[in-house]
Amino acid sequence: MTPGFTTEKREDGSTSSKNSCVHLSNPHLQKMKEDILYHLDLGTGTHDFPALFGDIKFVCVGGSPSRMKAFSKYITGELGLGDPNADVPNICAGTDRYAMYKVGPVLSVSHGMGIPSISILLHELIKLLYHSKCSDVTIIRIGTSGGIGLEPGSVVITSQAVDASFKPQFEQIILGKTVVRSTQLDGELAQKLMECSQEMQEFKTVVGSTMCTLDFYEGQARLDGAFCFYTEEEKLQYLQAAFEAGVRNIEMESSVFAAMCNLSGLQAAVVCVTLLNRLEGDQISSSHDVLVEYQQRPQKLVSRFIKNRLEKSKAL
Amino acid sequence: MTPGFTTEKREDGSTSSKNSCVHLSNPHLQKMKEDILYHLDLGTGTHDFPALFGDIKFVCVGGSPSRMKAFSKYITGELGLGDPNADVPNICAGTDRYAMYKVGPVLSVSHGMGIPSISILLHELIKLLYHSKCSDVTIIRIGTSGGIGLEPGSVVITSQAVDASFKPQFEQIILGKTVVRSTQLDGELAQKLMECSQEMQEFKTVVGSTMCTLDFYEGQARLDGAFCFYTEEEKLQYLQAAFEAGVRNIEMESSVFAAMCNLSGLQAAVVCVTLLNRLEGDQISSSHDVLVEYQQRPQKLVSRFIKNRLEKSKAL
Repeated sequence: MTPGFTTEKREDGSTSSKNSCVHLSNPHLQKMKEDILYHLDLGTGTHDFPALFGDIKFVCVGGSPSRMKAFSKYITGELGLGDPNADVPNICAGTDRYAMYKVGPVLSVSHGMGIPSISILLHELIKLLYHSKCSDVTIIRIGTSGGIGLEPGSVVITSQAVDASFKPQFEQIILGKTVVRSTQLDGELAQKLMECSQEMQEFKTVVGSTMCTLDFYEGQARLDGAFCFYTEEEKLQYLQAAFEAGVRNIEMESSVFAAMCNLSGLQAAVVCVTLLNRLEGDQISSSHDVLVEYQQRPQKLVSRFIKNRLEKSKAL
Repeated sequence: MTPGFTTEKREDGSTSSKNSCVHLSNPHLQKMKEDILYHLDLGTGTHDFPALFGDIKFVCVGGSPSRMKAFSKYITGELGLGDPNADVPNICAGTDRYAMYKVGPVLSVSHGMGIPSISILLHELIKLLYHSKCSDVTIIRIGTSGGIGLEPGSVVITSQAVDASFKPQFEQIILGKTVVRSTQLDGELAQKLMECSQEMQEFKTVVGSTMCTLDFYEGQARLDGAFCFYTEEEKLQYLQAAFEAGVRNIEMESSVFAAMCNLSGLQAAVVCVTLLNRLEGDQISSSHDVLVEYQQRPQKLVSRFIKNRLEKSKAL
C-alpha cells in the first residue's frame, strides 16, 4: 500500500474542510513506499489500515492508558456492542509508548502527558486515519485539569486553548524559526457537548478558555514543586488574571491538539474535569474514590454525545 | 513527617553544591504538613521516605516503562544483588503515569516522552530524594535519539543540551514571563562515562551537544509527519547547521533534565543511543531485534559506570 497525498479544494477555494476526509499537508509522503508509525508499532507495509480502521467515526484521546482502556469498556456497554466487562485488546501492544483500543466506530487512545507526547501521537494518528481512508471523524480529548474558580469535579468544554500569556495560539519551532498556529476549537461541537451535559444534569459543566502549559509546577504557578521563586500573592495575581481573561481550567495538551486538528480538518473538542480549584490550593488531595468518579465525568458526557449522534445518523 | 527546607552554604558562599544533599529551592514547602507526589502515587503522610529510599546513590531515568523495568533486572544481575530473571515490583503501581523500580542503591524510573512529562517526574523525584535525605546522588538519563552524522547504534554522551537554535539554554514560561536556565552538564561525569565505554570497546561512543526539541516530526525537521511545509534541501541545511554547531544527536528531554538537575545540585548525565542517522533518513526502519540491541547499549554503559563506582567506594 502506497500512501498518497490529496488536496481537496472547497467551493470557497480553501483546502481544508470539516466533516469530510482527513487532510495531510505533506507532499513528501507521496514518495514513500511504506509509512512506519513507529510510536504506534503499526505500518502500511504490515497492516491493512482501511480494513482495520476504515469505519472509525470517533476518536477519543486522554493521557492515561488505563483510563482510555476503561473508556473503551464503558463505551462498549453504552453502545450495546458487547460485554463491558470483557477485555478489549490493545492494538499497540507491541510498544509501551501509547495504548489504543477500538470498539465499533470508536477509537480510544492514550497520549501521555504534555504537548510533545500528544504531538507525536497526533502526527501518527492523523496519518493512520488518512491511510485508512476515514471520513467524517470527530476527535475529542477527555482529560483532567486544574480548575480556576470552579468547584472540583466541574467539567470544562474548551472554547479555545490559550498559552501562558492567555493568547489563543500555539507557538512551535520549525527549522529553528517560530511558527504560530490557531488554537480555536469547533464552536458548534462545543455547543452540542454542552447540550448533552444539560440533558444529563449530573454535574456542573461550563464552556470556557483552557490554558495549556509546558510544566505542571512552575508553569502553572504552583507553590509545591521542587523549585519556586515567586510568592503566594504573585501566584494568585496570575491565576486571577487568567480567570479574568476567560480561563476556566489549566492542562498540558489542548493547544497543540487544537492546532493540529485544525490543520488536518478534524472536528475537535476538549472536555476536561477539574480535580481541584487552583484559587484554593495546589495539591491534588481528594480521596482515590472521589478522583476516580471525577475522571468518569468527561467519559460519561462524551459517551452520551457519541450515542446521540449515532442514533441520529441511524434515524436519517 | 514534615518536609523541611534547608539551604546549605558552601565555603564560596553559594547555596548549591554537587555530591552532597539534594537541594530544594522552595520556601513554601516548609508550610506543608504533608507532601503528596501525585503522579508517583506516593506521599510523605503515607510512606516512610528515608526508610524506602534513603540509600539511593544512582537514579536512572528513561522514556519507556518496560525499558526501565528491563534495566532494573539487568542491573540486579550486574551488581550481584539477586536473580536477574526475578520480577522487580513497580513502586508506583498505583498510577500508570510513571513506573519506578529500586535495586539496592539504584532507582530506575520511566519519564514518558517530552519536556513536560520528564519535568513533572523530576519535580516529584527531586522532592522524593530530598524527603528521603539522600546524599551524593548521581542521575543519568538513558535514552534513544536520532543521530547526526553518526552510524546508527552509536552512543552519545551529552556535553550540553541545546535548543532548536543550538543555544545551551532552556526557556521556560513562569507566571507568563520567560525564564532562561543553563543546560550545561557535568564534564567530569561525562568523561568518566566515556572512559567506561573505552574499557568496554563494544560500540562507538562520542561526547557532543544534544539538541532537545518539543516535537518529533516538524520540530526535528522530519519529512514524514502529518504536516511538512519545507523542502528536503531546507531540512538538510538545518541538520547540517546543527552538526556544524556541535550537535551529534536529537531527543526530547535533555534540556529540562540538565536545567533541573543543575538547580537541585544533582550530578547529572545524558547517555543516548542513536537509532538512525538523520542525514540519511527520517523513518526508524531497523528490525525489532536490532533496535532492542541498540537500546541496551546505554544500559550496559551506565551499568558498567555504576559497578566501577561502587567497587571504588568499597575499596576506599
